[in-house]
Amino acid sequence: MRHHDVVVIGAGSGNAVIGDSFADLDVAIVEERWFGGTCLNAGCIPSKMLAYTAHVARTVREADTYDVDAELRAVRWRAVRDRVFARLDAERDEGRTGRDQQDWVTVYEGRARFTGPRTLRIDRADGAVGVSAGQIVVAAGGRPLVPGPVLDAGLPYETSDTIMRIDAPPRHLAVLGGGYIAAELADVFAETGSSVTIIEKEQHLLGPQDETVRGRFTDLVRSRYDLRLGRELTAVGGRPGALRLTLDDGSTVEADMLLVAVGRVPNSDRLSLEAAGIATHDDGRVVVDAHQRTTAEGVFALGDICSPVPLKHVANREAQVVAHNLRNPDDLIAADHELVPSAVFTRPQIASMGLTEQECRDRGLDYRTGMAGYGDIAYGWAMENTTGFCKVLAEPGTGRLLGAHLMGEQAPTLIQPLVLAATLGIDATTLAKSPYWIHPALTEVVENALLGLGL
Amino acid sequence: MRHHDVVVIGAGSGNAVIGDSFADLDVAIVEERWFGGTCLNAGCIPSKMLAYTAHVARTVREADTYDVDAELRAVRWRAVRDRVFARLDAERDEGRTGRDQQDWVTVYEGRARFTGPRTLRIDRADGAVGVSAGQIVVAAGGRPLVPGPVLDAGLPYETSDTIMRIDAPPRHLAVLGGGYIAAELADVFAETGSSVTIIEKEQHLLGPQDETVRGRFTDLVRSRYDLRLGRELTAVGGRPGALRLTLDDGSTVEADMLLVAVGRVPNSDRLSLEAAGIATHDDGRVVVDAHQRTTAEGVFALGDICSPVPLKHVANREAQVVAHNLRNPDDLIAADHELVPSAVFTRPQIASMGLTEQECRDRGLDYRTGMAGYGDIAYGWAMENTTGFCKVLAEPGTGRLLGAHLMGEQAPTLIQPLVLAATLGIDATTLAKSPYWIHPALTEVVENALLGLGL
Repeated sequence: MRHHDVVVIGAGSGNAVIGDSFADLDVAIVEERWFGGTCLNAGCIPSKMLAYTAHVARTVREADTYDVDAELRAVRWRAVRDRVFARLDAERDEGRTGRDQQDWVTVYEGRARFTGPRTLRIDRADGAVGVSAGQIVVAAGGRPLVPGPVLDAGLPYETSDTIMRIDAPPRHLAVLGGGYIAAELADVFAETGSSVTIIEKEQHLLGPQDETVRGRFTDLVRSRYDLRLGRELTAVGGRPGALRLTLDDGSTVEADMLLVAVGRVPNSDRLSLEAAGIATHDDGRVVVDAHQRTTAEGVFALGDICSPVPLKHVANREAQVVAHNLRNPDDLIAADHELVPSAVFTRPQIASMGLTEQECRDRGLDYRTGMAGYGDIAYGWAMENTTGFCKVLAEPGTGRLLGAHLMGEQAPTLIQPLVLAATLGIDATTLAKSPYWIHPALTEVVENALLGLGL
Repeated sequence: MRHHDVVVIGAGSGNAVIGDSFADLDVAIVEERWFGGTCLNAGCIPSKMLAYTAHVARTVREADTYDVDAELRAVRWRAVRDRVFARLDAERDEGRTGRDQQDWVTVYEGRARFTGPRTLRIDRADGAVGVSAGQIVVAAGGRPLVPGPVLDAGLPYETSDTIMRIDAPPRHLAVLGGGYIAAELADVFAETGSSVTIIEKEQHLLGPQDETVRGRFTDLVRSRYDLRLGRELTAVGGRPGALRLTLDDGSTVEADMLLVAVGRVPNSDRLSLEAAGIATHDDGRVVVDAHQRTTAEGVFALGDICSPVPLKHVANREAQVVAHNLRNPDDLIAADHELVPSAVFTRPQIASMGLTEQECRDRGLDYRTGMAGYGDIAYGWAMENTTGFCKVLAEPGTGRLLGAHLMGEQAPTLIQPLVLAATLGIDATTLAKSPYWIHPALTEVVENALLGLGL
């Protein structure tokens, strides 16, 4: 059995743990699928690259709004896909090659399972190998959840793992699920020419978003998609390329492709964690303390396999925390999981941070709402934008920012001053009135929302 | 002679001084040209609306970069212009009408000149009127500077006051000047089909910008425009619609339209300020103290006629200060003119704040530079952006932000967290490491530049 000082399971965010400061150790990285993990290969990055291309196509399509006479002839899907993945596959390969050049790092290509405390069996193409380690980092990520009716049917389906690499967009795409992954991919394929049906069990898309955001977003896309809200899939029939989905009210959807995007599950069930005494939550997430330590001595976890906020910027921070804690057992640090901002790169874009208005209400908080529309600021006039908005929630008296929710172009950029202020405890009035806000930049919508709090 | 409690000269930013809290006073507003001032009628706002339309046209033109097959048939200039100014003229008229409905406000349409301390003569279409006031606010703005050779020629020329409202774009536009107004308008007309020559006496466009910004910007537009750098205009000849500009090296430029954009001058020379004992600087700006008080008792000034930073967001803040100080002579407040951010809405966009690198060097400051490229972050990959960057300057040791300079899409939005941090004294490391930065949002370029400081 080969022994390493540190073994990292998963070369997504886990790979970021191992910086040059580990060069004095014998380190191993185990990856069964792709270096760079979900984000680089099948998540945040390719979806944003495709979304930006969709944005370009849409700008052409809507150019007439600006008195620009333009024709959209085609979105060359295969070229788009090849451009995106040529870049990302090269990044992935570079990440892999970089490790080969470090004589202190061993890369195992295969699936790791625990066989005991800090011991692993790694199943590789050329056979299994046993490995023990002084410390282990579990960063094996998650995977798309596929519900029973889809599995039972035995018919083809796509997930976010596969659909971005298909050869040709479907004529009619059925999307099961209405969360952010569903919404982003629906947007991409709608712009590349697919007609889209979305099947979602709630009455809104983007359920966890603030009620104003999810309500207005759902209303905006109602004309663009065939929305089947409040409906669940009961069966998949038909044949490959001519699927027939049956919903719980007996209605049906015909589609040549099905995208399953109902959520993700941690890969904890694939690691034989019980053999090492690593506990999991009921939802499958590995239990970690504030310092990313699992319930097993010397075993840390990070990223989607354990995080309450399965987003890449959180995983990155957890990776920094683990990197520190591996080397500094007497000076442990913690990752902050409060006030994590997130974004959805749909049309329109969405960004949010902190509490939603419904959460403020449900918790019985005393709060004020400030709203401002893109249509009320000069740059919004330039954009001919009548639907975008910034909504901020703050505590009267202190002006403490409780939450912020934006919908519209540049929302993921616009939210950053709000994130900064909330993180450092800068109150809403100071944020609105101390710094200059460039006129006429889009940031004025944030300034106005803050002033709209009336604090 | 009619007496008012307060008279405001200029209904641009001056108009913003008079809020409802003045309703107990007898207030007059004098405006000789257009309600809303330069910003609304011939400045920031229409130029940004035209720039956004240019951005749309450019996106169509460059769609192939994203494997989107599109054709730009035409930019319907007249429709663009009418769309922009229908909205802005309506805003202007609304501003005017709103004042008519306030019985405590008198509007004089005409040009005001001082005849003595706090006394004015206003020349109106239907005759002159004498007015006296308890307090006067001078907010008469500025106007484009037109150099001797252009005036001497007696041939037609445009300025930012006129060119945005022309009936048809020129075939060949000659732009005199290479500052931000010249650069923005050159961009607009280049996108609407004009070929453009820029004549600039310095070796760079956007001279006051950080050296990296002005250098890279100039290089980027070199293929797009006929740049005549280091050259001055000596004569304008030819005839209307077929101008022939002679430069100081004897070379010539043929153009059917000339845009003069070499700078702006305060309108202080039109107000007979000497009659009221109101002093001016050598450059024509009205002298004001920190509380916006001129050298004449009871006379305030704000905006382009006096400001060291002639930008609308500064004028707005000065207007708030004047509004307060008019009513609170014993509790005067001041406008901050440090760390004023500004933006240029060209292609690429530019935003800056604080010191440039050349200023840091010239002042002998100890400083560090952090640079990050759009091409090094995932959202920059999505944009296929290889030229955008964020550059930050900070003091080693303290991490105090000295300046920030961005070039690329969303730059005017991206700069806001830097403005906030610099204004509130948040050091570069805290700014980089405390808040989350959404992955993969464009804000990562700011995060990376901050980390690149190596503090």
